[in-house]
Amino acid sequence: MNSFPNELEDLIERLARFPGVGRRSAERIAFYILKMKEKDATELAKNIDAVHKTIKPCRICNNFSTQEICPVCANPKRDKEIVCIVEEPKDILAIEKTSQYEGVYYVLLGSISPLEGIGPESLSIGKLLNRLRKGEIKEVIISTDADNEGELTAQFLIEQISRYKVKLYRIGIGIPLGIQIEYIDSATLGRAFLERRPVT
Amino acid sequence: MNSFPNELEDLIERLARFPGVGRRSAERIAFYILKMKEKDATELAKNIDAVHKTIKPCRICNNFSTQEICPVCANPKRDKEIVCIVEEPKDILAIEKTSQYEGVYYVLLGSISPLEGIGPESLSIGKLLNRLRKGEIKEVIISTDADNEGELTAQFLIEQISRYKVKLYRIGIGIPLGIQIEYIDSATLGRAFLERRPVT
Repeated sequence: MNSFPNELEDLIERLARFPGVGRRSAERIAFYILKMKEKDATELAKNIDAVHKTIKPCRICNNFSTQEICPVCANPKRDKEIVCIVEEPKDILAIEKTSQYEGVYYVLLGSISPLEGIGPESLSIGKLLNRLRKGEIKEVIISTDADNEGELTAQFLIEQISRYKVKLYRIGIGIPLGIQIEYIDSATLGRAFLERRPVT
Repeated sequence: MNSFPNELEDLIERLARFPGVGRRSAERIAFYILKMKEKDATELAKNIDAVHKTIKPCRICNNFSTQEICPVCANPKRDKEIVCIVEEPKDILAIEKTSQYEGVYYVLLGSISPLEGIGPESLSIGKLLNRLRKGEIKEVIISTDADNEGELTAQFLIEQISRYKVKLYRIGIGIPLGIQIEYIDSATLGRAFLERRPVT
């Protein structure tokens, strides 16, 4: 016996392609699946199939949606002239929790990452540029992450969007609330100085 | 929008139950599944279903098998009177790679872990004790892991098996090959002294 049965090897290979899951973790997960009750394994399989078939990107903003248009875009109370650009649908959840935002979103479904060979061309911004061209948008807030990829992506978006007549913002970057200055990393602290704003 | 669509939330919850996968990783894996080609997602789902239906524990030793009896137990060249007890089927693969072992295996499908509330009663050793009782086995090598759980399990197995007329061994524990003494952890080094063996 030099290897596991084929079906098991196949599954381990597929699981090892999951983000953050290596060969060892994939083996552990595969064994876990083998030990599941048959009913639970079947439900997991159905769930994977279903999630892929029923959830599609919103036709307007790329947010996850079971309808053609997502709940945010379909909500008549949201201001369609203000658009917040995020990397992933989960960023929308985080922003919605703040209850500070009344506009709509646009999801890039990724970020520019030279290390992973992901260039600007792989961001899906066509639908957004179309709406900017038609003058449907008055304000854009770029809310990509504050890491290298997010900053590169923000830079690229600023170049693209500043061609249009629109108020363009980057989300505030600086010291998080509740943190003492002595404990903040120097990159954030330096940035917080660059982003200082007048108070008088 | 206060949450993801239900199908997606369900999938994230299921994935978060995988070993070593928390809520955050489960989200990342779920998004990865959503971004997969539909064909690949369907194949993954089928694979999970298939692996669970086609692979069952070997009727003799609990090893993974697509047949009623696993390739090792079915091999007429293997010595059925020598049984190596391991925790998991993957341990069999590791031992087979050494080409040092001609006997058969017995898989416990787990180990005793008081911290996780797993006691001796959850180890499936009934089939093994039956064969010992019938006198079918001459030699047993306990090859559970050298960690706390494996050592506890070995202790329990020694108590159970020493009642029968059989040569009983624990796999050698000590300094791994290729390692310099100064770099070995002190628990292993201490154990290596306890397990010292005469050479003259």
